[in-house]
Amino acid sequence: MTHVGRRTPTIEIREDEVAVCVDEMALLGRHPEGGLYRAVYTPAWQQAVDTFTGWLKSAGLEAKQDAVGNVFGVLEGTQPGPSILTGSHIDTAIQGGPLDGTLGVIAGFLALRALKEAHGPPRRTLEVVAVCDEEASRFHSNFWGSRAIAGLIRPGEAESIFDADGISLADAMRGCQLDPSAVEKARRDDIDTFIELHIEQGPLLEREGVPVGVVMAITAIEQLEFEVRGRADHAGGFPMDLRRDPMIGAAEMVLSATKAALELGEPAVATVGKIRARPGSPNIVAADVTFTVDARYPDQARHERFVAAIADSFDAIARRNGLELNHKRLLYQPATQSTQELVATIKSAAAELGYPCREIVSGAGHDTQVLARTGVGRAMIFVPSVNGRSHAPDEWTPLPDQVKGIAVLTETLHRLAY
Amino acid sequence: MTHVGRRTPTIEIREDEVAVCVDEMALLGRHPEGGLYRAVYTPAWQQAVDTFTGWLKSAGLEAKQDAVGNVFGVLEGTQPGPSILTGSHIDTAIQGGPLDGTLGVIAGFLALRALKEAHGPPRRTLEVVAVCDEEASRFHSNFWGSRAIAGLIRPGEAESIFDADGISLADAMRGCQLDPSAVEKARRDDIDTFIELHIEQGPLLEREGVPVGVVMAITAIEQLEFEVRGRADHAGGFPMDLRRDPMIGAAEMVLSATKAALELGEPAVATVGKIRARPGSPNIVAADVTFTVDARYPDQARHERFVAAIADSFDAIARRNGLELNHKRLLYQPATQSTQELVATIKSAAAELGYPCREIVSGAGHDTQVLARTGVGRAMIFVPSVNGRSHAPDEWTPLPDQVKGIAVLTETLHRLAY
Repeated sequence: MTHVGRRTPTIEIREDEVAVCVDEMALLGRHPEGGLYRAVYTPAWQQAVDTFTGWLKSAGLEAKQDAVGNVFGVLEGTQPGPSILTGSHIDTAIQGGPLDGTLGVIAGFLALRALKEAHGPPRRTLEVVAVCDEEASRFHSNFWGSRAIAGLIRPGEAESIFDADGISLADAMRGCQLDPSAVEKARRDDIDTFIELHIEQGPLLEREGVPVGVVMAITAIEQLEFEVRGRADHAGGFPMDLRRDPMIGAAEMVLSATKAALELGEPAVATVGKIRARPGSPNIVAADVTFTVDARYPDQARHERFVAAIADSFDAIARRNGLELNHKRLLYQPATQSTQELVATIKSAAAELGYPCREIVSGAGHDTQVLARTGVGRAMIFVPSVNGRSHAPDEWTPLPDQVKGIAVLTETLHRLAY
Repeated sequence: MTHVGRRTPTIEIREDEVAVCVDEMALLGRHPEGGLYRAVYTPAWQQAVDTFTGWLKSAGLEAKQDAVGNVFGVLEGTQPGPSILTGSHIDTAIQGGPLDGTLGVIAGFLALRALKEAHGPPRRTLEVVAVCDEEASRFHSNFWGSRAIAGLIRPGEAESIFDADGISLADAMRGCQLDPSAVEKARRDDIDTFIELHIEQGPLLEREGVPVGVVMAITAIEQLEFEVRGRADHAGGFPMDLRRDPMIGAAEMVLSATKAALELGEPAVATVGKIRARPGSPNIVAADVTFTVDARYPDQARHERFVAAIADSFDAIARRNGLELNHKRLLYQPATQSTQELVATIKSAAAELGYPCREIVSGAGHDTQVLARTGVGRAMIFVPSVNGRSHAPDEWTPLPDQVKGIAVLTETLHRLAY
């Protein structure tokens, strides 16, 4: 049991109640090969939505589902005005873990319930959201749930995105009694603030023994696919010095991207997670090698210089090796800075509760960055990831740290809304 | 028209006759996407066998097909004793060219026909062979044709090898009226010498303007598959210095293998033609990277040191990067040295004809190396490959060079058999 601070000693976030919620959600969408698969508009997802809705109702919170299936729990304020929103996404990665997204949904629910029980109606309206789809683990849907809230879905988009079985996102919506032609109704213009609690998905908090991180920025994320073209030659008959072997160029590029990230320093990261050589035969010098570079830095201007430096070094490597180089951008998300006042409020809440708290940068993308595009105030609270793991069945946060994070969220919301 | 030397001015290898043979074979097994696909026991292959058999008969040479489908044309000698064999394989790579293998079959046929016409029966029996399968482009059959001749096929092997459609090699044989239980009957113990004419499959002869190469050795060929295991981490949340990224290790290994080959010097080659990262997602640090190394050197002892040096450097890279390294051998063919007396005879034949001739090493594997395992005398004659190309539709040798190579083969056989 953890008591939330001195100012509001009656607010209590109980370990056993957190555990019950986490365990209940962790039963929904079990993947046969381990972990969870609770993709948007699947039966498992529907079960999770129904479970969350049931929790809201049992706590006396108004439950509303929007046009794309995001579910909001509302604790109406006594004054008119825009809402303070918390929550996260309720869908999972393929063979994902029990906490990515879900813990933020649970945290928001428990915070609102605790505040309501302890203090009754707030001055400003509080809401908790279970965002329908963040992971895009079924469709290439790119923050579908939060884009709907932000009004960033293109007309006809639901009809143009398909899952691996060829089912359109629109048809999948209809299967859940949702009307794809009504997507724009999900847009909200009455949100003032969004605070998202999430697992870190990295090792820093655990390594330093700090239970709470306050996110200063969500990194810019840029994914590029590079194609290095050389010439396919017989691996036996062709002397080394007459080859134009794209594999050698690609290997130099992998090391060059790594070096660029190390030189820029933490939290810069550059990752080559995917590579393919064609024709892909042991005894043929590759004709071309294609690989991805995922580069991230939380400061937008430095991020752009970082990616430009990588691309320049690749050009030089290609020239030196007589190779042709092409690239295309697979993904681009600019950096998102947190709202300074909210960061200060979270730090102050953690301090009052006596919990160590460090500033941190999110290396992953989150719904927060999408809602930020509408200009809302935003910040995130991170809790430690055991071994830094996420998107895996062994993703976990020690229960006491889950509770501490939820307590900081509760105290923060209390300060903002009462 | 080219006259073969001063000693035997009546032997003539005519460009137009070579071209007719090449063109006729190049019609058989056209691949819909370009080039030829004449894999063993396919209808196109059967057509090529029938065409070759027809040529033999029309030239008054005895035609014999062995138990696996190799076809021999025999010019009986006046003295008893083992045969002098020439020829090559009649199958092709997938989307292969018109000359790899086939030119050696044509060369042997034209040589025997020319010798018979000019000089009648030889003292020693001459044979030309169309080996049924060298490319293994349908089955993983690993020199099936020449292994049958050398008696190196394991009992039951034909039943245990399948093509991409699940057809066993044994069933494919039955489809060509060949009895897989009789494979061992193809073994020959009465071959004394094998001389194979083949395209170079590399750029050296063309680059130097030399029409004929005499092969001193067939390189050792070793293909290893390395698996570098690290740890899958989130590409955003995990700092560079805490990762165990197998892609970085693999990139260093690619460059290390390349460096080892360059340091040993020509004709050492090391090739990474195939690579895969798992799970293979742009935003996940790879859990493991698997790649092949094809390493070749024609001197056996140096080859072994070369491969050991590569493997040692990989071990060091894995250790330094905190990675686990496993490997397995995919292919191993020891180096084959040519028989010095035959090399001398070929050089002398080329000199007599006035054709420049250089010593060369074969970087590719050939039927010659398999027959060499039975202890027969062996050597190869190479003709230039335009742009060094092979296993591709644009594989070619200028017709005058084809003729020169065949003339050298003819003169060599004359010296050995008459």
